[in-house]
Amino acid sequence: MTPINILVTIDANYIQPLQVMLKSMFLNNPEEHFRVFLMHSRLAPDHVDGITAFVERNGHTLSEVRIGEECFCDAPVVKHYTKEMYYRLLAFRYLPPELRRILYLDPDILVINPIRSLYDTDLSGWLFAAAYHDIIFAREINRLRFPEYNIKAYFNSGVLLMNLETIRARVSESEIYNFVRKHKNTLILPDQDILNSLYSQDIKKLDGFLYNYDVRYYKYRLLMAKKQVTMDSIVNDTVILHFCGKRKPWHKNYSGAFHALYKHYQKLALLP
Amino acid sequence: MTPINILVTIDANYIQPLQVMLKSMFLNNPEEHFRVFLMHSRLAPDHVDGITAFVERNGHTLSEVRIGEECFCDAPVVKHYTKEMYYRLLAFRYLPPELRRILYLDPDILVINPIRSLYDTDLSGWLFAAAYHDIIFAREINRLRFPEYNIKAYFNSGVLLMNLETIRARVSESEIYNFVRKHKNTLILPDQDILNSLYSQDIKKLDGFLYNYDVRYYKYRLLMAKKQVTMDSIVNDTVILHFCGKRKPWHKNYSGAFHALYKHYQKLALLP
Repeated sequence: MTPINILVTIDANYIQPLQVMLKSMFLNNPEEHFRVFLMHSRLAPDHVDGITAFVERNGHTLSEVRIGEECFCDAPVVKHYTKEMYYRLLAFRYLPPELRRILYLDPDILVINPIRSLYDTDLSGWLFAAAYHDIIFAREINRLRFPEYNIKAYFNSGVLLMNLETIRARVSESEIYNFVRKHKNTLILPDQDILNSLYSQDIKKLDGFLYNYDVRYYKYRLLMAKKQVTMDSIVNDTVILHFCGKRKPWHKNYSGAFHALYKHYQKLALLP
Repeated sequence: MTPINILVTIDANYIQPLQVMLKSMFLNNPEEHFRVFLMHSRLAPDHVDGITAFVERNGHTLSEVRIGEECFCDAPVVKHYTKEMYYRLLAFRYLPPELRRILYLDPDILVINPIRSLYDTDLSGWLFAAAYHDIIFAREINRLRFPEYNIKAYFNSGVLLMNLETIRARVSESEIYNFVRKHKNTLILPDQDILNSLYSQDIKKLDGFLYNYDVRYYKYRLLMAKKQVTMDSIVNDTVILHFCGKRKPWHKNYSGAFHALYKHYQKLALLP
């Protein structure tokens, strides 16, 4: 099987969650080889060395993609989001030109089942593949925020499969910068807003239950993709659990249906 | 290291939970060798073969301890409990005479950390080691139910470390039968009632937070053994999670803080 390319972009606050995410992915994909591309601008060399050692100890490879201070200097930093959140959209400019696809993953997720079916999604003609979150609510809000864009759906950018060949041909850095300059004041989730405003018609829809399950939904037993959501179906079938929102499972006083499972993987990730 | 002897007693309804329990124990104790003694009277040979194959596939050994119909014929079957629940107290009569200690485990538990510290508990002078559950409430009830016995504490019998050498010398089958005949109508948890009424002063107290954590307590964040209970402390330190009560994590519509973690081990146990 071909290796699976994974893109992550973090700052120093997310090193441990990143390791938990990677550990869960490695453990549940024992037959895969992962090439992890770590895109960053501000991690200390010691931190990069630590992450590299972690990935190699688990039998996989890590490539550092260091972004110089001169890059992205026009992009606004909005609220509590770091500049790294823009990286995923322009990652293609800094990744090896021979890569044909890569899967971007947020660090606040667990990969609890084999990821191959997601990675091998047919992307012919598409730029990206992603899943919806909060579709109706988000769509209405975005119609008010970005009335001139024909936003068909609001995709979550935390799990983003990239067709690098079509992205290189069709995604324009200047178009993204122009959008950012124009909407600086209304951006809430900058990268996600850009993705949805400029490219929503070029994003293939993934099954959100399988590939980007918002754990906050569990409490309400929301039907997703017409499936009855049970703990069995999630643990057996869902590939990616996404701990969306401000409350994270590594925070004190977090509670949620997947708290113990998260701590389980955290323990395994931190074993020497 | 010496092998760890484990005693289990189940009927056909508990085969899958037993496998989940054993799988969690094997996974979290990769350096141990377990000898599992399966005491039963009514399992079909196919079932025993299946459990044996499961244990051996995981690198451990299973010994069947088949109890004939002629044994325990005087013991009452109370309510929804099966006769197997009496076995643990008289297991010593049917186990190999060279065994010096054995750890009885209920099938409704997960072993999430190394079990060696529990197994090696110093039992000099004691018959058993066990943990308290619901101590104040249970003690009062039992004072009413069994006024003639000096019940010092109410131990949970779901995790019961046995000092087989002293048990052989001091536990009397006829004393147990006499107690059962006398209290047939007031027994609620027969084996546990016997254990506490006859032997509570010979049971060494285990740390319940570490070795027999009642998962129903989590919701109320009960302090046990003066420790602050957090999800981190449970996942990192607790050895045994006990899914006490009638609602079990393998039932439909179960909910609880450790549901996802249980399903995780269930999935691993059922992998081919």
